[in-house]
This record gives sequence, C-alpha cells and structure tokens, in this order.
Amino acid sequence: MKRKLRMGMVGGGRGAFIGAVHRMAANLDGQIELVAGAFSSDPKKSKLSGKDFHLDPSRVYSSYEEMAEKEAALPADERIDFVSIVVRNNLHFPVAKCFLEAGFNVVCDKPMTFNLKEAKQLRQIVKKSGKVFALTHNYTGYPMVKEAREMASKGKLGRILKVVTEYPQGYAVGDVDRKGPAKINSWRTNPEVAGISNCIADIGTHAENLGRYITGLEIEEICADLNAFIPGRVLDDDGNLLVRYKGGARGILYASQISNGDENNLNIRIYGTKASLEWHQENPNELIVKYHDKPREIYRRGNDYLGAAAQANTRTPFAHPEGFIEAFANVYLAAAKAIDAEVHGKKMPKNLDFPDVEDGIEGMAFIETVVKSAKAKSKWTKFIKA
Amino acid sequence: MKRKLRMGMVGGGRGAFIGAVHRMAANLDGQIELVAGAFSSDPKKSKLSGKDFHLDPSRVYSSYEEMAEKEAALPADERIDFVSIVVRNNLHFPVAKCFLEAGFNVVCDKPMTFNLKEAKQLRQIVKKSGKVFALTHNYTGYPMVKEAREMASKGKLGRILKVVTEYPQGYAVGDVDRKGPAKINSWRTNPEVAGISNCIADIGTHAENLGRYITGLEIEEICADLNAFIPGRVLDDDGNLLVRYKGGARGILYASQISNGDENNLNIRIYGTKASLEWHQENPNELIVKYHDKPREIYRRGNDYLGAAAQANTRTPFAHPEGFIEAFANVYLAAAKAIDAEVHGKKMPKNLDFPDVEDGIEGMAFIETVVKSAKAKSKWTKFIKA
Amino acid sequence: MKRKLRMGMVGGGRGAFIGAVHRMAANLDGQIELVAGAFSSDPKKSKLSGKDFHLDPSRVYSSYEEMAEKEAALPADERIDFVSIVVRNNLHFPVAKCFLEAGFNVVCDKPMTFNLKEAKQLRQIVKKSGKVFALTHNYTGYPMVKEAREMASKGKLGRILKVVTEYPQGYAVGDVDRKGPAKINSWRTNPEVAGISNCIADIGTHAENLGRYITGLEIEEICADLNAFIPGRVLDDDGNLLVRYKGGARGILYASQISNGDENNLNIRIYGTKASLEWHQENPNELIVKYHDKPREIYRRGNDYLGAAAQANTRTPFAHPEGFIEAFANVYLAAAKAIDAEVHGKKMPKNLDFPDVEDGIEGMAFIETVVKSAKAKSKWTKFIKA
Amino acid sequence: MKRKLRMGMVGGGRGAFIGAVHRMAANLDGQIELVAGAFSSDPKKSKLSGKDFHLDPSRVYSSYEEMAEKEAALPADERIDFVSIVVRNNLHFPVAKCFLEAGFNVVCDKPMTFNLKEAKQLRQIVKKSGKVFALTHNYTGYPMVKEAREMASKGKLGRILKVVTEYPQGYAVGDVDRKGPAKINSWRTNPEVAGISNCIADIGTHAENLGRYITGLEIEEICADLNAFIPGRVLDDDGNLLVRYKGGARGILYASQISNGDENNLNIRIYGTKASLEWHQENPNELIVKYHDKPREIYRRGNDYLGAAAQANTRTPFAHPEGFIEAFANVYLAAAKAIDAEVHGKKMPKNLDFPDVEDGIEGMAFIETVVKSAKAKSKWTKFIKA
Repeated sequence: MKRKLRMGMVGGGRGAFIGAVHRMAANLDGQIELVAGAFSSDPKKSKLSGKDFHLDPSRVYSSYEEMAEKEAALPADERIDFVSIVVRNNLHFPVAKCFLEAGFNVVCDKPMTFNLKEAKQLRQIVKKSGKVFALTHNYTGYPMVKEAREMASKGKLGRILKVVTEYPQGYAVGDVDRKGPAKINSWRTNPEVAGISNCIADIGTHAENLGRYITGLEIEEICADLNAFIPGRVLDDDGNLLVRYKGGARGILYASQISNGDENNLNIRIYGTKASLEWHQENPNELIVKYHDKPREIYRRGNDYLGAAAQANTRTPFAHPEGFIEAFANVYLAAAKAIDAEVHGKKMPKNLDFPDVEDGIEGMAFIETVVKSAKAKSKWTKFIKA
Repeated sequence: MKRKLRMGMVGGGRGAFIGAVHRMAANLDGQIELVAGAFSSDPKKSKLSGKDFHLDPSRVYSSYEEMAEKEAALPADERIDFVSIVVRNNLHFPVAKCFLEAGFNVVCDKPMTFNLKEAKQLRQIVKKSGKVFALTHNYTGYPMVKEAREMASKGKLGRILKVVTEYPQGYAVGDVDRKGPAKINSWRTNPEVAGISNCIADIGTHAENLGRYITGLEIEEICADLNAFIPGRVLDDDGNLLVRYKGGARGILYASQISNGDENNLNIRIYGTKASLEWHQENPNELIVKYHDKPREIYRRGNDYLGAAAQANTRTPFAHPEGFIEAFANVYLAAAKAIDAEVHGKKMPKNLDFPDVEDGIEGMAFIETVVKSAKAKSKWTKFIKA
Repeated sequence: MKRKLRMGMVGGGRGAFIGAVHRMAANLDGQIELVAGAFSSDPKKSKLSGKDFHLDPSRVYSSYEEMAEKEAALPADERIDFVSIVVRNNLHFPVAKCFLEAGFNVVCDKPMTFNLKEAKQLRQIVKKSGKVFALTHNYTGYPMVKEAREMASKGKLGRILKVVTEYPQGYAVGDVDRKGPAKINSWRTNPEVAGISNCIADIGTHAENLGRYITGLEIEEICADLNAFIPGRVLDDDGNLLVRYKGGARGILYASQISNGDENNLNIRIYGTKASLEWHQENPNELIVKYHDKPREIYRRGNDYLGAAAQANTRTPFAHPEGFIEAFANVYLAAAKAIDAEVHGKKMPKNLDFPDVEDGIEGMAFIETVVKSAKAKSKWTKFIKA
Repeated sequence: MKRKLRMGMVGGGRGAFIGAVHRMAANLDGQIELVAGAFSSDPKKSKLSGKDFHLDPSRVYSSYEEMAEKEAALPADERIDFVSIVVRNNLHFPVAKCFLEAGFNVVCDKPMTFNLKEAKQLRQIVKKSGKVFALTHNYTGYPMVKEAREMASKGKLGRILKVVTEYPQGYAVGDVDRKGPAKINSWRTNPEVAGISNCIADIGTHAENLGRYITGLEIEEICADLNAFIPGRVLDDDGNLLVRYKGGARGILYASQISNGDENNLNIRIYGTKASLEWHQENPNELIVKYHDKPREIYRRGNDYLGAAAQANTRTPFAHPEGFIEAFANVYLAAAKAIDAEVHGKKMPKNLDFPDVEDGIEGMAFIETVVKSAKAKSKWTKFIKA
C-alpha cells in the first residue's frame, strides 16, 4: 500500500469486546491507523476512549452524524479512508448509510442490518456509492478455512453429501435457573435492538456463512426448532436446524448459548464422496481430511504443501499458532487492499477475499427463514429469496 | 457363579462379525462356555463353524428349531442355559420365541424384532416364560457410560437442557458414486429382511438407547429427515433428527453410513444447567465434564474417584485401555448373573444392569416413529406409544 | 487349532491383577481353557481361586512343584499343554525351570528372571527342552505397534535418527510425602523379591522392549540417572536415560512411578529421515505418521490399508476400540499356535510373533546396564553383552 | 500510557521472519509506533523495508551506529523511546551496547549475546545505563504459562519432583541425507555468527527459560549429549539432556531440529507431589492439571477462574484462540510499561513481568554448560555460575 490507511470507528469504546478486536485486527499489520472515532453515544465516554487510543481530541466525536459530516469536510489527505462500524445491530444500517452517502468506505460488523428489508436497501446504497463495503464474518479469515474452501472448489471432496455445522456456547447457561435478575442482560436479547433473533443472529449466521464459504452450497429449505431456555427471554438462546441444500446435500446446523461449558465451539464437518473435512475453530491451525480407504490426514497451517489462499493469509511459520485476531486481521487486510485501490483510484485487485454486502443479505435471509420456520407447523420452509 | 453357564448360539458362523463379538464377550471372563449352536442356515457351514469353536459335533445343529428341540431334550446338567441370537433382523422374533417357549433364557442382538408389533408380542412371550431376556445394546456396557448415567441420576448435571447424539459411519460411501454393483450389499438394505429402516435401525437405535440410558429422558416428538444417498437403495443410509423430550429438553440425533472417513463415531453430549457431559465411543475410557464457571474435568476409567457402577464394570487398571469387547462383555456378565439365578432357582439379584425387552420395544417404537416422521409433511411426529 | 489348549497357571489367585489379565487374554478367543493351577503359596487361597475359575478341585494344587509333578503324571490327553507363570520376579526362574524340565511349554510374565545370570541359564534350559517359551511383553501385541514395526522394517521411515520412549506412571506419588507407612508396599520395592530394580525392571523394560521391537535398533551405551523419591525406598521409583544406539541413532528413555496424574502413559516417538512415528499406549488404536513435507497421517486399526501383521492381530472392525486385553491376547494367541504345533508334533509355523527367551535376556541385560550406569561417574556405560 | 511509544528497529528487513513478528507484536495493542530503523546492513534493502513500513525516509538508516547517533540528536519529543534488536546473534551485544550507551531503552531477541562473557558485560552496561532492557523469551508471554507459574508459586503442585521439557522441530531433517548443498543454510549453523551452539542456543534456551519461569527451580548439574546429524555441521542440530535441579528435582530437556514432522513442539510437564502440569505450545490456550486421586482438569484461557497474571495477559474471550503473536505482544506490552515509566520519569510499576538481562545471562550460562557437558566424559557438569 502507498501509505497507511486512515480508519475511523463508530462504537467500540471502553469495555466493548468487539471494538477492541476490530482495532487489534486493524493494527496488526501496520497498514491501518486509527485516527478518528465516535466511540459511544455518551460523548464523555467517547472522549475518554479517544484518549485511550491516543487520538487527536478534535477527531473524537459525539455522534456518528457529526463524525461523518466533519470528516467529510477535512482535506483529502487528512480525512479517514474508511469507517469501522461496531455498534448495536439496529444501528448498523443508519450508520453505514450515513458514511457511504458521505463518501466513505465501510467495514461493518455482523449481522449486517436489523432485518432483511434494510439489508436490501443497503445493497442499493453500496452499489450507488461505488464504495467498498466489507462485513466481518471473521471466521472465514482463518487460513485453514481458506484451505478447506480451496479443497472443496478443486473437487478434492468429490460431491458434497452432508454438512454438519455446530456453534455451541455456554456463557448464558447460568441464567437458566438463576434466581433474581439475569446476569447476561445484553442488548442482544432485546428485539428492539437486536431484531427478531438473538442466538441465530449472533452466532448462527457465522455458522451459515462458514458453511457457504467453504462449500459454495446454497440452502434450499430449512426446518428449525428455536428455543428460549432462559426465563423471560423473548428471543432464542438456542436453535437446531435441519437443512436441505440445492443439489441434494443434507445438513444439520445448530447454535446455542446455553450449552454449559462450551466456549466458542464453532466447528464444521463436510462429507463428500471422495473425502471429508473437519475444522474446529478452537483448534484453528489444523484441518482434518478423512477418507474411507486411506489414512486420515492432518493439514497444518504454515506448511508449503498448502494452497495459495492459506499461504497468503498466514503470518507465522508452522506451529507458531495463529488465532482469532489474525483471522480477523485477514478480513481487514483484504478489505484494506480494496479500500486502498478505491482511495487511490487504482484498479480493484482481483480475487480479494472478504465478506461483502451479499454475504450480509444472505445472513439476513437466513435469520428470517429460520425464524419463519420455527413458527411453522410444516416441516420445511423455503429459503427466503434475497 | 456356581459353575460356568452353557451357551448356545444361533447364527454367527464363520465370517460373521457380530457372532464373533458375542463369543469373545461371552468368553472373556471365563464364566460362560459355548457348547452348542446352529451357526448357519447352511448345515455344512454350521458344522464347519462348530469345528472352529471346538464343539462336540452332536451339539452343532442344522436349524434353530432342531437345536431348541434337541437341547430341550438333553438332561438338565447338559443342556444349554441360554441361547445367543445373532441372526438377521427378520429372524430375531421367531428364534427368540422358539427358545423362550422351549424354556431357554435368551440373549438377543438388536434391533430386537422386525417391527414394533412383533416386539410387543415378544414382550408377552418373555413375561409368560419367566425367562431372562437380554438385548445387546452393548454401548451402555462401557464403564464411562455407566459413570455418565450415575452422574445424571445423582443430579450432578442439574436439569438437562439439551442432548446431541451423533453416530456417523462412512463405510458405505464408496457405493454412492460407484459404477457397477454396490460393494456393500448387506441384508440390512433389504426391507424384507431388515425391516423399514437400515441406518436408523442398525445404528440410530444405539444412539437413541445410549441417550435414554444416560439421561432417563423420554422422547416426546421427533422431526426426521431420512436419506438414501446410494442409488437404488430403498432404505435409509443417513438420517437426521430434531428431538423434543418430555419436560422441555431439546435434542439432535443423527446416524449415517455415508459420512466418509468416519468409522464408528458414536458420541454424545448432554448439556445440563449445572454441568455437561461429553463421551466419545472411539475414546471410551474418558468422560469429559464441562462447567461454565470452573475448569473442565476428565474422568478416566479405572480410578477410585469413579462411582460404583463404573468401578464394578471395569477389568483392568486405569490407562490399560478397555474397549468394545469389554463393554460387550459387561452386558453378557450382567445377563449371566440373571441367568445363573434363573437356572439355579436363586433370588434374582437387584440392580442388574443390562438392556432388556423394554429397551427393545423402545427401539422399535423409535424406528417406527422416525420413519413415520420422515414421510410426514408436518414438523413434529409424536413418539409412538409402545 | 485341533482342539482347545489346556492351560495351567502358577500364581494369579484372587485379587492378583496380572493373573486375571493372563486369564482373560487366554479366554478371549476360545482357543485356550484353564484346567489346572497353583494359584497361591497359601493352599487355601489356591483352592478358593480354583473354585472361582470353575476348576476340577483335583487340578488345584498347593505348590508349583506338586502341580508340575502331578500334571506330568496325567495322561497326555488330559494334562496341561502349557503353564502360565504369574508369580513374583524371584520365582520366575525356578517355576519356569521346573515346568520346562517336566516337559511343559511355558508362558511367563516379565521381567523374565531375577537377574541376568538366571536369564542365561533359562536360555539353556529352554534350548535343551525343545519347548515353547513365551514372555508376555504384551505391549508389542497391539496391532498398531505391529504396523509401526512393519513400517520401520520396510523402510518407510528411512534411517532412524532418534527414539524417545516414555513410560510415566504416577500411582506411587502419594507415598513421597506420606506421613506414616507407605500405601504402595509392593514386593516390587523389595530387592530380595524384585531384584536390583523396581521401576526400570517393571516398566522400563517394557519401554526398552517396545523400542527394540519396532525399530530393531540395538543399544550401544546408556547414561542413566535413577532416583528413589519415596523415603525408605532402596530401589528406583523413577529413572531417566540417555541412549546411544549402534549405527548412530540417539535416544531418550524414561520410566517413572511418581509422575503424578499419569496413569500408564507408555508412548514412543521414532524419528526417521523419511518419516516419523508416534504411538501412545493410552490411545492404542491410532498410529501417527509425520513428515516434514506433507500432511500428517493417522493410521487407524482395522482398516484395509494396514499391513498384514496389524490386520492379522485385529478382532473388531475399525473404531470398535480394542485395548490392553486384546493386545495381551495377541501374545497368547501367537504363543498358542506355537504350543499347538509343539503338542501335536506339527511343523512350527513361520513368523510367529511373540516375545521369547531372547527378549527376556535383553530385558535383564538392560536392567543390569541401567543400574550399573546409574552408579557410574562416567557418562556412558556399554550395554552388557548377553 | 500517555502517548504511543516510538520504536526503532535494527535488523528485521524484508523477508526476515522474526523482525515481522516483533513488529506485529508491537503493533497489536496500538501503544507502540514504529518510526525508525536500520533494517539491513544493505542500505538499499533498509530503505525498501522502511517504505514497506510507511516510515519517514529520513528515519531509515544505513547502519545501527548512524541510527543511534542521529536518533539521539533528535528532539526528545521525536526521537525513539526504545530500539528492538533483531539481528544475528553475534551483533546482539554491540548493537545493544551502542543504543544503551546512547541513552535508549532496548528490547532484544535471544540468545542475548554471542557468549557468556559478553552477557556479563551487558549486565554491567544495562545497570550503568539505568535503561530498560527486555529479552524476548516470548514463550513465557502465553497466559497459560503465566497461570502455570502462578499455580507453582502458590504451592498447588506441592514439591516439584520432575520436569520434562521438549522442544523438537523437524525443519532441517531434509538436509540429513540430502545430496548436494544443504537447504537450510542459516547463519545459525555458522559458529562465527551463532556462537558455540545452534540448536541448544536457538531453541534449547527457550525450553530452559520456560521451565525456570514456571518452576523457579535452578539447575544444579547437567549431563548432555549433543549431536550433529546433518553432514558438515559443526554445531549441534539435536541435543538431549539429563538435569538435576537444586533441591532434588530431576529433569529431562531436549531440543532438536531433525525431528521429522514436528513443527514447533515446545512442551513441558511438571510433576509435583500434589499435582502436575502439562502445557503444549502448539495448543497454548489450555493447561492440563493432573492428580493421582481426582479427575484431570483442563484450565482454559479467558475464564474467570484463572489467576490474575493469566487474566491480565489476555485479549480475547475464552475460545477465541490467542496465539504466538499475542504471547509475543505480552512481552512487548510489559516492557512498554517499563519503558513508558522510564521515558516519562514515572515510578517503575511493580511486578512487571518480562524477561530481562538476568534471563539472558542464565540462558548464556545454560548454553555454555551444555556444550561443556557434551564434551565431558564424566556424567555430570555443574551449572556454570553467572
């Protein structure tokens, strides 16, 4: 890149988990510099956060609208090149719209919008803007996930017959039988902020995105059982799905926040006629390849025998473990290359590999299909067209 | 036991996998002696098998009817104490009926009968006979499965919220795209011999039985997606289920024969409000206990800290691994204690822990419910009363 | 085999761990029948044990001498075909000598004798007797150990550079700081019964035997550090060795009884120029093959892709786990084939694979070399010629 | 921190692995900014590297001497706060000396110097300078290593009896039998650049440092067997050590570059009278705790049940895996806090946890002891006083 890209951030002030992850992901490679932000709807908190991040106080704003306006008014060689949006679900759309229309590239957390309708509008806005829009479905940033995708696309698995995707977490289980107020009282459980789903929207969409990224399979229909185990919950904290893919493959997908003792146990198994894959996010540097007629193989990050995508998305040698932040940084780095091209009027590089507005639309359609199916008496609900 | 029990066998001649397992399980502890058999419907093959097993040729029969009749005619101190039935599904019922009515105790392979109707008839026959009937749902014979059951029953898990049971095998996947005749051409795929299901009947029932054994939960309703991936197959080679248990727990259960590279990967995860369990049949000497607020624990077979059931069903010290045959032998040993009591007119010991005719009925009801659900358009099918 | 072989046993009465293992190993395949025994030096205990095993009381003896004499006096079609010796180390030699000279084949537990001198005498006695002598270095009975040996012998590893063999157990650690008398008060810690070593003799020899079995490498010299962590112990409870093999390979071998929390953690890693192997006794159904330039492979018991030796020593299909007893039974089964040939005057089958008197001599030479090195001030002690 | 710290770098230009790691570690938390460097002894390469890192060309130097001089001449609010030294072993000392004497704080790669003599000189220079000196023994930066140390120091393990530390790598094995020139032709194998050891100096020192960090045990004497398997090698590519610690604990430590198929398999097992620990660098987010009388425990990074040090050195929630770079960044962050205090004349924070000049001296003494022992005929060589 010609120079470091200048990043702004909306949301992600002191104490916010995902904002810190976005910043570390952006920092890692020394190609991006945080220079501005509206870190909180509380202006004081925003200022304090700006101080933590060593920003020029004049670039720390009290609202995202102010930020978009004032940054747009700065000279081209000062103003931010893109904004990272790490606010609550219901604000993703207005913030993204605001910055895109003010002429900024956008990196946005998932789920992309509050609902599918907004998602489709956002697609139009992105198109019209001509700007880069990246969605941080970060799990596809892992090198061994990219290896899995390359194996699948090159036919190493043969025809895919079955996909099993699990995403159990257990952090909320303490609230199931808690006397007194729930401990996990996140906005994610509030339908006015989170939308029509909690668990499926927060982590089920990662599972769906991961499976689609690796296999390329499209869901035809879904049969969903959503549950709210925690008393008083309006939204799901657990969901179990049967899936039928176009072309005949079958699947199981589930996500849960009440699976006691599981931490962030996203994993996927893809069964093909020639070979099968198994990848576990909690042990991300390995990819297991299974056959019915020869020994299992363990592919490990950082080796020369891996494909181009895995190699290009790796920072350390084999068995110097890479983790969550490095995968997240791969999304940032790919988006940064696109943003760099956009900013400097260069030709857009080919084969940039980051999730975009289409992934966001698929995710929102997935959420709406699942919730529709969960309410249905019939077994199968067609995947909602997006 | 007073003396070694005398065992007869129907089926299980040369080359039959499961017959050999039954014999090894019976042999292991030196409490049971194979003395008679009708090992094949082909009398020559039966004779040759008898020779392999060092039997008196006069006790090697050409048919099970002949065997039941002639053994019954032998003096009490010579004739068999029980028969092991390891024939094809459609013969389980007639053979069991024949021996029970001839006054013999029975150990029978699963699924118990050809259909639920027969299963209910068998229940009556067993009751009337006063004989011991044991069904070899062998996976419940593993010590760490017994530990899991004891933990669950003692409340260590709290209230159970979710059960995920998987049973993927991949041995048949080569037939999915094979040109020419299928390699796996088992009677299990023939509905006239196997009944209405292949995969669910063969291994899905093990998964169901395992979950019920550990948790005690009863299934309320099932939503099933059955598949036949191998061309020309009438019966399922893969099945995926959503499960609702009485009392509010939720579940996923699946079984498959086309999951490339999986071998015999039965495993179960049970999530409770206080703790969760995880057990993998391929690594059977460990039981993983997970919590959301303290370190995971690995319980290992053979240790003093385990409960009574696990300790009573163990033969070797810790980390001298026990396996499939030892678990199978635990079913045999428990049944043998009951048979010993029956034969010698002793009081039946309490708390003998082996699967019986009721487990067989549950299994058949499970198969019929799954197949019914698979054909239904509505999402949920009530578990068929048995 | 023509008929079941008739086995006698010396030692191994009620409560003895290793006697029970030998009986289960002998029982498993239905080719061997226990018919006689002198199970304890206490005649009452011997009788009770005989009853447990359903023996004819006239074949339960009060001493091994009586047993050898009376069994030899029985008609050829009644008397035992071989004896299993499961007594304390210091009795291995006299019992084996007694039975060999009385014309019986012998299966003997390890270490073979009390010292190397006895071992060499035993070699002469075996030779002179023309009888079969098998030593139960049972860990070489595992199918995947046989696969490892086959890989090494066929050159798959290239030239072997390094061998790391570990055998940590922790069962005695409670005695290190115990107030009051030790809990583990085994004869193994008594030099008059056990010989010059406890830990190295009991389990270090297994480690040595395992490495030699797989690699064929001969030890040239050893540098040993033996420790007795438990107060009052005369013999080692922990030992750490550097090893130099003939031909240039290097090694580490250690054994321990005070490695808190380890159970029976025998494992070996063999590093070659072309590939490396890793096998863990606690997970015996897998063999890991590693390369520096391609993905790791996991070889799993029961698959068609394995070599002849692994396949011939397997009883159940893949992922129906086999364990310690099955491996032990492989030693018994191979010895039984030799004994069967000896008894029936048949030609000795080729390539029978069980440890014999030469393995016993190597083991005793190993123990003496290690103890000599531990006392030496110089770094390297030549392996004692046997 | 008041402001971002300004970092300079010596070495670490284009293509250098460890330089890139240092930069990412420094970047990660947004508290350090690379502003100057002498990245290569080739001025052109240094310039190009400076461009890659988006530096002001006036701050990219042709030699470290020039850099030290010119940076020292800059105003206090411009010049670097510290320098990172990532050059070859033989330059560590002169570069560190140069910058310390020019008034700069130093972060230096290991091994600290070319030999022990230089190490002791450096200690004096650091003392005299009053500057911060940090040594990047990065493996002690892992949160679960810090947890292990806290467990050990709080007595959870009881008295430590045994330590087994392994560091096998296999990247060089291809050269053992290679025809033609070696592929791995690193300066590490050149004694004029690397010093008296290759393998022990490069990775054995990490193993030694890790064990000392966790246990606090001091080595009393060593018995070493060093090997050079690759033809033509003057320095070791493999080394195996027996270790005796002060106070009676025993140990094994080995390091290797020819262990085919191992990647970066640093691991440690620490056996105490009350409990034992096991940590594997390739799976760094877990710490296994073993007992002889209760279930094993798996401690996992990111949980509330962990001690203060593990929690303070963690960036992401449980099971959002952290890896090598995050651990490295923990060393940087701790050093940065000390540097920040030094630069701003603040009181030095207590309990800052990063390796320093004393660790470097211990490491050099370890190397010299090992090489001395390897040449000795006697078994034990006293640890060289430093």
